[in-house]
Amino acid sequence: MSTDSGVAGAGTNGEVTLAIDDGVGTIEFSHPKGNSLPGTLLRELAEGVQMLGESEEARVIVLGSSGSGPFCAGASFNELVAIENERDGEEFFNGFARVILAMIRAPKFVLVRVHGRAAGGGVGIAAAGDYTFAVKTASVKLSELSVGIGPFVVGPVIERRIGCGPFSALAVDTDWRDAAWCERHGLYARVSDDVDAMDAALGLLAGALRVSNPAAMAAMKRSFWQGTEHWDQMLADRARISGSLVLSDYTRAAIARFRTR
Amino acid sequence: MSTDSGVAGAGTNGEVTLAIDDGVGTIEFSHPKGNSLPGTLLRELAEGVQMLGESEEARVIVLGSSGSGPFCAGASFNELVAIENERDGEEFFNGFARVILAMIRAPKFVLVRVHGRAAGGGVGIAAAGDYTFAVKTASVKLSELSVGIGPFVVGPVIERRIGCGPFSALAVDTDWRDAAWCERHGLYARVSDDVDAMDAALGLLAGALRVSNPAAMAAMKRSFWQGTEHWDQMLADRARISGSLVLSDYTRAAIARFRTR
Amino acid sequence: MSTDSGVAGAGTNGEVTLAIDDGVGTIEFSHPKGNSLPGTLLRELAEGVQMLGESEEARVIVLGSSGSGPFCAGASFNELVAIENERDGEEFFNGFARVILAMIRAPKFVLVRVHGRAAGGGVGIAAAGDYTFAVKTASVKLSELSVGIGPFVVGPVIERRIGCGPFSALAVDTDWRDAAWCERHGLYARVSDDVDAMDAALGLLAGALRVSNPAAMAAMKRSFWQGTEHWDQMLADRARISGSLVLSDYTRAAIARFRTR
Repeated sequence: MSTDSGVAGAGTNGEVTLAIDDGVGTIEFSHPKGNSLPGTLLRELAEGVQMLGESEEARVIVLGSSGSGPFCAGASFNELVAIENERDGEEFFNGFARVILAMIRAPKFVLVRVHGRAAGGGVGIAAAGDYTFAVKTASVKLSELSVGIGPFVVGPVIERRIGCGPFSALAVDTDWRDAAWCERHGLYARVSDDVDAMDAALGLLAGALRVSNPAAMAAMKRSFWQGTEHWDQMLADRARISGSLVLSDYTRAAIARFRTR
Repeated sequence: MSTDSGVAGAGTNGEVTLAIDDGVGTIEFSHPKGNSLPGTLLRELAEGVQMLGESEEARVIVLGSSGSGPFCAGASFNELVAIENERDGEEFFNGFARVILAMIRAPKFVLVRVHGRAAGGGVGIAAAGDYTFAVKTASVKLSELSVGIGPFVVGPVIERRIGCGPFSALAVDTDWRDAAWCERHGLYARVSDDVDAMDAALGLLAGALRVSNPAAMAAMKRSFWQGTEHWDQMLADRARISGSLVLSDYTRAAIARFRTR
Repeated sequence: MSTDSGVAGAGTNGEVTLAIDDGVGTIEFSHPKGNSLPGTLLRELAEGVQMLGESEEARVIVLGSSGSGPFCAGASFNELVAIENERDGEEFFNGFARVILAMIRAPKFVLVRVHGRAAGGGVGIAAAGDYTFAVKTASVKLSELSVGIGPFVVGPVIERRIGCGPFSALAVDTDWRDAAWCERHGLYARVSDDVDAMDAALGLLAGALRVSNPAAMAAMKRSFWQGTEHWDQMLADRARISGSLVLSDYTRAAIARFRTR
C-alpha cells in the first residue's frame, strides 16, 4: 500500500503529509515560516503519528519536515501572539504534549530525520524519537526563556534524552548547540555529513526494521519509555505553566521587539 | 590466600576460574566460541561473583574473560537454538539477570576488564561493573533485535550507565559502537591503547582499592546502585519477555540464516 | 542597590562575601588553604545563597571563589582532623548538604564560576549550579575514598548531573578528570580558554538573565530540580555515613600520612 495525502491544505497554513510505503510509514510536516508549528499542524501531527502507530502496514515510522531550511522553528510565532487567555495558552502548548505522547506511545519505533536547525518545540520532537538522525549543520536551541516563557512541555523528554546538566545549560543560555554537542549528549543517534548521507543511512535502518520482529520492537518500545506513564498529567500541568507565562508583559515585550525588526 | 580453581571443566564447554591473590579476587570466564555464555557458565559466573563478594579475603573483584579475541559474544547461540519452550527461554535469560544482580549487590567494587569486542549480554556485564576498563578496540553492539528478540534483561543496567538516548540508539540499529563512543556515553571509565596499558592501570587501581576502607567502599557500592532494589522482579519479568520472543518465527529464521552461512 | 560585606572576618579563617549589583547577586568564598571549606564558611555560604535567593533585587546568583589557585579544595583538612565523635562528623558534612540544598532550592538560577581545580565537596558545588562555567584548567577529583570516607553527601547532585557511570568512575579511582571530560559528561555547561573569556561569557549570560522573566526562571528552576524533594532527608542520612566513617582507623592513618609529608 502506498497512500500520500495532504491532511491539511498546503500553502500558507502549512501541511502534514502521510505515506506508507513497503512497511515504512512516513509523516512530514511543512510550514512556510521555517517549519514552525501552529496548533492545527500540531494536532494533525499527533493524529498522524497515532494513525501510523495503529496501522498494521506501517512497521516503523519516519518523522521529518520538508525543505532544505530549518527542521522546525518551534511554536508558531503568530499563534503565540494571538493567545489572549490562559485557557488558549494551555491548549496551544498541549499541542506539543500530544505530539510527544503520540511518538513515545506508538507501539513501533519512530525515527526522526533532522535535516536542519531545530528550536524550542522542534528540539522536543527530535528528543521524542527512538532514533534520531541529523546532519552536521542541525544545531539546536531552546529559546523559550528569551521570549518570557520556558521549555516546560518539551523539558521532560529532552532531559530524559540528554541528562539534567546539558538540558539545564540549553534552557538557561538559550544559545545554539551544534550537532556534535547533540551527539555527545545523546540527543542525536547518528550525525551525517549531508542530507544524502543521512537519507542513505535512514533508508538502510528503516529497511532493516520493517522486516524485524514487530513483537520484539513493540516490547523494546515499551521498555524505552518505561517510567513515563504519568506524563499525560505532567505534560498537561506543564502546558498550564507555559499558557500562563505567555500572557506576561515579558512575552508581550519580546514579541513587540521581534515585530519591529 | 591464593586459590585457582576451574569451576567448570575447561575445553569445549568453557569454564569459569576464581582466584584470590593479596586482597584482589579475580573471576574469569572462557568459552571457545568467542567467550559466549551458555547457561552453565552464567550460573557459575553469578555464583563466583557472589562467593568473592562474601569472601573476607577479597577486598575488590576483577571480572574478565580469557584470550585475545572477543571479551564476550553474548548469549550462546547453540543454547538459543535449543530453547523449546517459554520456561526454558525464561530460565536461560534469567542467567544474565543473576550475573548482573550478583555484580551490583556484591558489597565491594567490581572492576570489569574488557579486552575485546562485546555483544548483547557481554555489554550488560560491562555496564554492571562499578568501574570498567577497556582497550580502544573494544567495540560493543546490541544485536538482539537482529535475531528477533531484544536487549530486555541487560537493558536496565546499560540504560542506567549510558542514558536513555544512547541505549535506544544501540538497541535499535544493532550496529557496532567504538570504545570512544562508550567512554563518551559513560560505559567505559577508562580506555587504554592496548591490553598491557589496561592491565597496568587496572593493577594500580586494584592495588589501591585492596587497602582502602572496606566500610567506605561497601557504603559507596550501596549508594551507586540505590534505586535498583526492585530489579530482581524487573529483570525476571524481562527474562520472560525474551524467553517468549526467542520462540518466534523471526528468531527461528534468523538462526537458520546464520547456520547456512 | 549594591552591598559588599565580608560576612566572616578575612584572613586565616577565610570569608564569604556577598554583593548585589544591578540585579546580579554575587557570592564568593575564600580560604587561604586552597579555598577549602571549614564548617563556618559552609554555614555562611548556605545562608548567603539563601539570602540572595530571597532578595528581590538579585534576579540571578553568581557563585564563585577568590584567587587564581584552586576553585575549592573540598572539606577543610584541619576540621576533618578535629572531628572526635559521630555527632560532630555528621554536623560537619551536613554543612555541604546545606549549601547544596540552598543552591537547588533558590527560586532563581545559580551560575557557578569554576576558575581552577575542584576536589571533593567543591565538585558538589560545581554540580549544584544550574549553569556552570569553567576554564579549561579546571580539573576535578573526588578524593574522599583515599582518606577513608566517600562522596556521600555530594554524590546525589554529582550523579544527577553527570550520570551513574561517570560518577562511579570518579568516586572509585579518586583521580583527576580534565575540563573536557567534565563538559563531555554534563558537569560544565561552558568551558573557556581562560578566566577573562569565562568572565566575559558569564557577564553576558548574567546580564541577559537579570532582565528575563523572573516567574519563568522560578518555574524552570523548580522543573530542573523536580524529584529532589526528599533530598533534605537523604543528604542528612548521607552526612551520618560520612560522619561515622571519618572516625575510622583508615581516615586517622591517611591524615597521619599527609601530616608527615
